[in-house]
Amino acid sequence: MAHPIALADMRAAAKGLDGIVIRTPMLENPDVNAMLGGRLLLKAENLQRTGAFKIRGAYWRMLKMSAEERERGVVTYSSGNHALGVARAAQVLGSSAVIVMPSDAPEAKKAASRALGAEIMAFDRDSESSDAVVERIERETGRLVVGPSTHPLVLAGAGTTALELLEQARDVHVELDAVLVPCGGGGLTAATAVVMANASPATQVFAAEPDLFDDTRRSLIAGERVGNPAGRRTICDAIMTPIPNAVTFPINHALLAGGVTATDAEVRAAMHFAYEHFKLVTEPGAVVGLAAILSGRAPIKGRAVATVITGGNIDPARFADLLRTSEINQQQDSPT
Amino acid sequence: MAHPIALADMRAAAKGLDGIVIRTPMLENPDVNAMLGGRLLLKAENLQRTGAFKIRGAYWRMLKMSAEERERGVVTYSSGNHALGVARAAQVLGSSAVIVMPSDAPEAKKAASRALGAEIMAFDRDSESSDAVVERIERETGRLVVGPSTHPLVLAGAGTTALELLEQARDVHVELDAVLVPCGGGGLTAATAVVMANASPATQVFAAEPDLFDDTRRSLIAGERVGNPAGRRTICDAIMTPIPNAVTFPINHALLAGGVTATDAEVRAAMHFAYEHFKLVTEPGAVVGLAAILSGRAPIKGRAVATVITGGNIDPARFADLLRTSEINQQQDSPT
Repeated sequence: MAHPIALADMRAAAKGLDGIVIRTPMLENPDVNAMLGGRLLLKAENLQRTGAFKIRGAYWRMLKMSAEERERGVVTYSSGNHALGVARAAQVLGSSAVIVMPSDAPEAKKAASRALGAEIMAFDRDSESSDAVVERIERETGRLVVGPSTHPLVLAGAGTTALELLEQARDVHVELDAVLVPCGGGGLTAATAVVMANASPATQVFAAEPDLFDDTRRSLIAGERVGNPAGRRTICDAIMTPIPNAVTFPINHALLAGGVTATDAEVRAAMHFAYEHFKLVTEPGAVVGLAAILSGRAPIKGRAVATVITGGNIDPARFADLLRTSEINQQQDSPT
Repeated sequence: MAHPIALADMRAAAKGLDGIVIRTPMLENPDVNAMLGGRLLLKAENLQRTGAFKIRGAYWRMLKMSAEERERGVVTYSSGNHALGVARAAQVLGSSAVIVMPSDAPEAKKAASRALGAEIMAFDRDSESSDAVVERIERETGRLVVGPSTHPLVLAGAGTTALELLEQARDVHVELDAVLVPCGGGGLTAATAVVMANASPATQVFAAEPDLFDDTRRSLIAGERVGNPAGRRTICDAIMTPIPNAVTFPINHALLAGGVTATDAEVRAAMHFAYEHFKLVTEPGAVVGLAAILSGRAPIKGRAVATVITGGNIDPARFADLLRTSEINQQQDSPT
């Protein structure tokens, strides 16, 4: 089956991104390993520029723009990490970015993108769709649309995360048994699956999702794209997607070992674990893989299991609040 | 002048600690560098086992115990990171540790050391001194005293932090202009000074201290050990020491370029900066060097300046509280 991306595309992206993105550390703690009875490896993309892996794909896509495209700039829809990645990439490349956000998006998110030089275009959720607004701006301004997880160059950029992880694991003589990837649109998951299938075929790749947004897991079982019921919520805002996208799902369907899930309470506990044992600031959607491991839903005993910590963009008050509710839960669960 | 430690001692320690301690990452962010106009390098020892660099010295000292000494175990006084390092080292080596703490020490600190298998010996601050209690236990049980910053093996172990930093900087072709070391007892500072003086003589080493506990800075100027006035407080509890110690001060006096300070408000701002730009959980005493850089008291423009983030052991509620007060300060300082 022909996929839109191949290992060679990732390698090309890795060369192009060298010196631009941070080669984030792969973290491991022997005391945690002893506790879990296996090796836990964290690819810390929360330490990436703009606090998330998204800049890899955005920059690689935008680096390939023609001079005229660069001059006209880009447009995208995102209220989160993809917006920051696109805004920073535009800044570094001397281009410009318009970010479409719902008019009721938090002021902090608008301010963060504005601080990187992006123009924010607010739209009314009730009367317009984000796609329609992006298309209108594309039509009226000639700006290039840079979506978060479907263009082959965006996927190739995301895949450099997995390439680095594999190299870093091999640097310490670890063969990865499994990699869990927090899965929203499915781009990083698909890119990771392509890397492992070609460069480390014994490594199983799993999509990790919030239990109420397990569209990829259920789609893998059904063999076709199925969506999530409307009206649900999760603290994992970055990966709260309605349905797998048509570009990444065929890749994931062909290459993934399956899907695993975690509840919001398990995600909070994983954030607390990352705080305590790795001293990391993480956002909820970034630790859904870690949460699945810690809750025993992805076996680690006697194995080497990696997960990507996809981002750490969370304001201190919300971070503190999620850690506090995690502690209260733990105390309630505890027998003493 | 003959110092109690030489570069060769550090190199021997690095070999002995290989596979035991974590080779913590040196972190750098191009966006932060652009903001500061220089290169900022963080040696992230908060990601070390037990959350602080202290285990390096404790383990190396304890590895060199005889079989009989190991059997009898060790004793130390500490309510913080050194206690955790000693407790974990004892556990890994199959030895045992008694940690002397004041009876009014926070229950969380006692619990953390107990969780690592250590026995806590409480004493009454008002009727006994910690030294007297440690000496009594040494006399009665034959346990070896492992102090935090004077024994040559403890200093050699601490120095492996600086050796790694130097290697990691050279791996990315950076020659360090300066290293700022959070300074309490002065052990890590002295060890870093020995490493740089011998392996990178152009690198200036500075002791970084809370402004109300700048005993090392003032002692360097006076040319002799002078203490801090009694009754002062700082949020930097880990480095709230009364006076430079007699072993490390002569080394620091001979080799340091000087001392820099930061206020508690600057330390809170540095914690916030580490949170926002490096997604790190840090304890106040660990970022006093970073605080001095950010507040302009250690020039970084056009230079490559490193600092050791010495630890990240802080409970979530206190962490959140310090970040919140930092934000309030920033809003008050801001002209808008």
